[in-house]
Amino acid sequence: MRYFLQLAYKGTAYHGWQRQPNGLSVQEVLETALSTVLRQPIAIVGSGRTDAGVHAGEQFAHFDLDTPLPDNLLRSINSMIPADIAVYDCFPVRADDHARFTATSRYYQYHISRQKDPFRDGLVYVFTLPLSVERMNEAANQLLHHTDFESFSKVKTDVKTFNCQIEHAYWEQKPTGDLVFHIKANRFLHGMVRAIVGTLLAVGQGRLSVDDFNLIILDRDRRRAGRAAPSEGLSLVEVSYPVEVFAQRKQR
Amino acid sequence: MRYFLQLAYKGTAYHGWQRQPNGLSVQEVLETALSTVLRQPIAIVGSGRTDAGVHAGEQFAHFDLDTPLPDNLLRSINSMIPADIAVYDCFPVRADDHARFTATSRYYQYHISRQKDPFRDGLVYVFTLPLSVERMNEAANQLLHHTDFESFSKVKTDVKTFNCQIEHAYWEQKPTGDLVFHIKANRFLHGMVRAIVGTLLAVGQGRLSVDDFNLIILDRDRRRAGRAAPSEGLSLVEVSYPVEVFAQRKQR
Repeated sequence: MRYFLQLAYKGTAYHGWQRQPNGLSVQEVLETALSTVLRQPIAIVGSGRTDAGVHAGEQFAHFDLDTPLPDNLLRSINSMIPADIAVYDCFPVRADDHARFTATSRYYQYHISRQKDPFRDGLVYVFTLPLSVERMNEAANQLLHHTDFESFSKVKTDVKTFNCQIEHAYWEQKPTGDLVFHIKANRFLHGMVRAIVGTLLAVGQGRLSVDDFNLIILDRDRRRAGRAAPSEGLSLVEVSYPVEVFAQRKQR
Repeated sequence: MRYFLQLAYKGTAYHGWQRQPNGLSVQEVLETALSTVLRQPIAIVGSGRTDAGVHAGEQFAHFDLDTPLPDNLLRSINSMIPADIAVYDCFPVRADDHARFTATSRYYQYHISRQKDPFRDGLVYVFTLPLSVERMNEAANQLLHHTDFESFSKVKTDVKTFNCQIEHAYWEQKPTGDLVFHIKANRFLHGMVRAIVGTLLAVGQGRLSVDDFNLIILDRDRRRAGRAAPSEGLSLVEVSYPVEVFAQRKQR
């Protein structure tokens, strides 16, 4: 049987989602806890990687298990893992449902606070210089007219294409003054959202024009784009799947 | 000249507001930074104490200074103090305005999350057992019919009276399922809000009735009331002063 986990994490203390030799990852924490509770080695596959320090308000992962799930699985797992990771659901899916390949889109938010915020240290990027949100939104809108985003991809990458279908990309100004960048696409390249946000901040400060931004996309050269915005502002907030994936999920 | 500071802090890392010999306090951090920036020993007086681990979304403190304020005071202070404390304003007041004695009321909130929340560790009390919010609100309403709250005061205390005028006291159920207790009064006794919340949680679980709650207040015996709710859920969110205190505050 294949199962999906729905979970969330504050990424500050982790070297990203993906298990790796030289630092603790969210994947490793979950695999250790699941293997302990289920008394057998469990490997999980996430919907996608998040970088060190990046958060997830919604993340999915799958694993396979031949024995029935214990009733108290969620409580056991959550009491075993640290307070900065929470597992909200575990439900059976079809044998070929895959956390990464069955996902149809990912939605990220980038949170900017315009003043120091003692309650969200590590959860927002504090950026206090003047910004033109209007120009940032004009530039963000250009993203919808392109599909090749090599300009915003880390150079060392093993992807076959740089094509992404962006569904929406815009800045929201909160009543508190906070700025939130919303971006949803079928897929994202490695480092893409942070590179886009960093470049849009250069537009917002007047260091780049909206035309410059457009040319940067056309150029397909990461070195022309802006510096990546810090990881702390970035959150994966939604991963979408076809409704059939949730057919065996129980209402809570 | 006397000045007011407006500030906020996440209390998790501090032994409360008040300076003390055996642990770092918010007051000590601020006095050290102010003394450094202003190049003379500065002592501050807060609107009131908050216990170890308790937060403040709004706190005021005053200090005296004979030399003019440097222009970049807020930026200097904020870059010197840790990310979990923020100073939002500093403005001159009248010579006899006092952060504690001029304050007319204090407003606290107590935040309960009904599930593990990776993004608010230390900022909410996670309480997942069933609760009757209706009964908790019935009991909270009893608070408005009393003025002596010795039952909810720490036993070792040097106050002259246990009288408090409570303006409002009620539980709000958020759409997310979160519960927030709102309580505003002219003054609070030491440990009072956490003792009230702990006792109201016993009512919500059916371990005490609304009548029991009323009798506990009348009894004036701290041992009859419930266990104090943990500090992490508590925040001082507003301190009120007569409008004249803000006459010399600049619009930002």
